Amino acid sequence: MSLLIVGSVALDSVETPEGKVENALGGSATFFSIASRIFGAEVNVVAVVGDDFPEKHLKMLSGKGINIDGLEVVKGKTFHWSGRYDESFADPITLDTQLNVFATFSPKLPKKYRCSDFVFLGNIDPTLQIQVVDQIESPKLIAADTMNFWIEGKIDELTKLISKVDLLVINELEVRLLSKEKSLLAGARKVLTMGPKILIVKRGAAGSMLITSDELFVLPAYPIEKIIDPTGAGDSFGGGFMGYLASRGEVNWDELKRALVAGTITASFNVEGFSVDRLANITLDDIKKRMENFRGFTEFAIPEF
Amino acid sequence: MSLLIVGSVALDSVETPEGKVENALGGSATFFSIASRIFGAEVNVVAVVGDDFPEKHLKMLSGKGINIDGLEVVKGKTFHWSGRYDESFADPITLDTQLNVFATFSPKLPKKYRCSDFVFLGNIDPTLQIQVVDQIESPKLIAADTMNFWIEGKIDELTKLISKVDLLVINELEVRLLSKEKSLLAGARKVLTMGPKILIVKRGAAGSMLITSDELFVLPAYPIEKIIDPTGAGDSFGGGFMGYLASRGEVNWDELKRALVAGTITASFNVEGFSVDRLANITLDDIKKRMENFRGFTEFAIPEF
Repeated sequence: MSLLIVGSVALDSVETPEGKVENALGGSATFFSIASRIFGAEVNVVAVVGDDFPEKHLKMLSGKGINIDGLEVVKGKTFHWSGRYDESFADPITLDTQLNVFATFSPKLPKKYRCSDFVFLGNIDPTLQIQVVDQIESPKLIAADTMNFWIEGKIDELTKLISKVDLLVINELEVRLLSKEKSLLAGARKVLTMGPKILIVKRGAAGSMLITSDELFVLPAYPIEKIIDPTGAGDSFGGGFMGYLASRGEVNWDELKRALVAGTITASFNVEGFSVDRLANITLDDIKKRMENFRGFTEFAIPEF
Repeated sequence: MSLLIVGSVALDSVETPEGKVENALGGSATFFSIASRIFGAEVNVVAVVGDDFPEKHLKMLSGKGINIDGLEVVKGKTFHWSGRYDESFADPITLDTQLNVFATFSPKLPKKYRCSDFVFLGNIDPTLQIQVVDQIESPKLIAADTMNFWIEGKIDELTKLISKVDLLVINELEVRLLSKEKSLLAGARKVLTMGPKILIVKRGAAGSMLITSDELFVLPAYPIEKIIDPTGAGDSFGGGFMGYLASRGEVNWDELKRALVAGTITASFNVEGFSVDRLANITLDDIKKRMENFRGFTEFAIPEF
């Protein structure tokens, strides 16, 4: 089935304890689309870059079979983010953000994208996310990402957006901000009353949770030998999740759980290289091997007492 | 089989977003012994309290069948800790520490304790931990807890202690401090070359890991509806782990994995009340029910691709 991703395509300058890169390929739609394409779904990208954007990146994306008809190239400079991670590899320090052509991004869906089965609204202004939702015809599942910036600054638009989506991807802090509940589970249940039937809580090194009104699934992060660069971990997690779902077509509890595993594993590869260096060279076989390892690392039998 | 715990018994004054308690029963040996006793092992405690220590606490411990012959009551005041947790329920702010009679604690093992099968050395001065190891005759497994304070302040004694134990309980930061490795897995493997055959890495809200030279097991924390007070979570985790193992008698990979599940579940009850309020009222049936929930929350099948 087809999967639409609307988000950013960027050039990132990133420094981590393992090295640094300048103007490397980044952006939520980049990590998301490469991650989701691994699972074989038809992937349609809507984003914008400037006329400085290297041709080789466009070739790489379309070479993977990612549909970039919706990736506008406009006059000006590409979105540029620069940041640094310390030894904890937790939240980066943002050194500089230049929105450039992304500042006036207004997502326009090519006609053939409008009947995409699965839709992922990357973390952009909720007003734009709503515009995308309104252009979509009979989707099977619409998912959205957001961040504290929109919860604090555009709560009305965000509330409207949330009421229109099936699945919301959110981190622990954002659950607390949005629900005003101290308990993560109580907060998550409150967010579920605001519209989405499914909630994914991203917890960084603590893994992730999948929550519906009557089900709960909890995964640790995949244990990584050596983290190189966490940039794009959340987006490749989302891409693995949605790419898996779109490749199956069915949305049920068992498939949602496997999709969370797929997202976890996909993100685990992404953090093993700068930019998309590692992610862009992963096959479905690599994913499957690591899924099997992961089950071995986590499964246990209940003892008889 | 029998399990020896050497650690602190304290009176804690704790404030969390859910309320506060003054001079409530606390200390590593307290949480540990109550937690481990749930699994039915013979539990022997070595610790010290002052003559101000309420008789009702001693009665409660011995009423649970915990052997407190090694719990010395000496002239003076009991160890008192006071701390506060913020809404994240992460590491508390210590407001006051009064070691009192604990300052001159020198663990003396009653003769019948010396043949304990399982030994847990709570987080005390490694010089004292070594004294305990030297008093033990033919144990099946010796485990030790430690902290950054000893890694930074008494590395020679700690290194000697580590070389004498079978299992070390340590958190992520401590793995990095002790191994000088950035990667948690690489650091853990380095610690395994220093003596212990088994490493447990405590990761707070991120759960825990069990690592040997050729095996790895990863668990998320049990999802809690409402955290009341995290004090003693690590000790009840250790107590559940060792209590389970001691109740089985066998130390093999499958039992170690189940012991980690037992520790995780035991700690999940502990944080649902102040002091030992919740932990002291838990049965093996409660543990078993939550283990089954936990398996439901975490198990998944590998998809066919």
